[in-house]
Amino acid sequence: MGGEPKIVTACVVVIGNEILSGRTREGNLAYAAGRLRELGVRLLEGRVVRDEPAAIIEAVNACRQRYDYVFTSGGIGPTHDDITADAVAAAFGVPLMVDPAARARLEAHYEPGQLNEARLRMARVPVGATLIDNPISTAPGFRIGNVFVMAGVPAIFQAMFESVRHQLAGGPPLLSRTISGRVAEGSIAGELEGVQKRFPDVEIGSYPFYRGGGGGSLGCSIVLRAVDRARLDTAAEAVRSIMRAQGIEPNEGDPQ
Amino acid sequence: MGGEPKIVTACVVVIGNEILSGRTREGNLAYAAGRLRELGVRLLEGRVVRDEPAAIIEAVNACRQRYDYVFTSGGIGPTHDDITADAVAAAFGVPLMVDPAARARLEAHYEPGQLNEARLRMARVPVGATLIDNPISTAPGFRIGNVFVMAGVPAIFQAMFESVRHQLAGGPPLLSRTISGRVAEGSIAGELEGVQKRFPDVEIGSYPFYRGGGGGSLGCSIVLRAVDRARLDTAAEAVRSIMRAQGIEPNEGDPQ
Repeated sequence: MGGEPKIVTACVVVIGNEILSGRTREGNLAYAAGRLRELGVRLLEGRVVRDEPAAIIEAVNACRQRYDYVFTSGGIGPTHDDITADAVAAAFGVPLMVDPAARARLEAHYEPGQLNEARLRMARVPVGATLIDNPISTAPGFRIGNVFVMAGVPAIFQAMFESVRHQLAGGPPLLSRTISGRVAEGSIAGELEGVQKRFPDVEIGSYPFYRGGGGGSLGCSIVLRAVDRARLDTAAEAVRSIMRAQGIEPNEGDPQ
Repeated sequence: MGGEPKIVTACVVVIGNEILSGRTREGNLAYAAGRLRELGVRLLEGRVVRDEPAAIIEAVNACRQRYDYVFTSGGIGPTHDDITADAVAAAFGVPLMVDPAARARLEAHYEPGQLNEARLRMARVPVGATLIDNPISTAPGFRIGNVFVMAGVPAIFQAMFESVRHQLAGGPPLLSRTISGRVAEGSIAGELEGVQKRFPDVEIGSYPFYRGGGGGSLGCSIVLRAVDRARLDTAAEAVRSIMRAQGIEPNEGDPQ
């Protein structure tokens, strides 16, 4: 078995004043979270930053040094507030260029005369970047180093993610078990901590669920995650035993 | 009028592996965004961090130095993975203590014998903190310095936010206008940039809207925000003129 398999990590940087003003509800982080998990990549951080060069540059540079992959969402359209390409180029210290292939795609997409200067902005990528296909609205994203620059519109973000998924080298997937029961988490917290201490290689989270409105706690879901299936199953059985000792029959998965 | 009014800023730090695994959809940032805007506070950044002391400490310390207010969400329950209080205390370099008032509230809330050691964790706050009321499930949040530590369950987060809202001193509110039209943003991007240059004190964002699925662009909403109502209205009229020059009748607000 020799040698720990490498843990592969990621971060999502959401770019856009519309998220921070509450105008638009963010959903790309959740999408990336689910898909990355399936691919054996651990999403360890998310950031939401405004449409300002300094904010984008700082987030991209902090995250690309810390994580294996960085996915940005938003700010790659044709208008003046779409400054992600400029900011990512600045973060890498390279100039922007009009990518010939990106330009050709836009030329094929638009009616003659419609590819104006603003739309041509969408063909600009940092020197050294490679394009990310956009099967929905043509204008591509790009990858530079370990940073994947993608659109904010959810359908396009998702399509771009699927375009690059084969480029992502995942580590061993985190397996998970969810055990739920109608027991207040505070009643089993001590025993649960005991399981966590015995299984430091299993990540154990406790999530209460409520009757509508958050009023009365009805019970909790215990989520266990680990790379090693046997360890995971043993820890899960320990959690079931804790619930049974409280006279509660545990359910597999979230409550019905 | 003498003197620029102070711009008041904020950041939300969401704490929880369940957000980063995709298990739970985050919604507290959007709630805070909307309420803060109404209060004249600008939400300038959001972060999502995992349940690890170093990640929480770093995010809290980076954000509390940079913004007027920091709101954290999550990790204040009774189980071993609820480590926000410990991490915030460490961020401030102060010890944790069992707050007598918090303890009294929990004693009044639970049946005799139910306030076990795990639940008593929810009475621990950093030295120097003040409590934040929790009208839903009793266990309080707390404020230390400019950091407001609140629950992750949305109904409780929202109730706690309303508990502290009177403590927030907002600046001049950002007024906004939304103008939409069935015109591709790429067709008006150049003119729009001209308006932005003439009105640097007005924040102008362009947001395309689509037929279901993100396929064809149907049009765009232009959102203008400014403190000065007259400047805002003048800039909005300039945007309407751009649309009319394209033969498009602009709508007030988002598309119907």
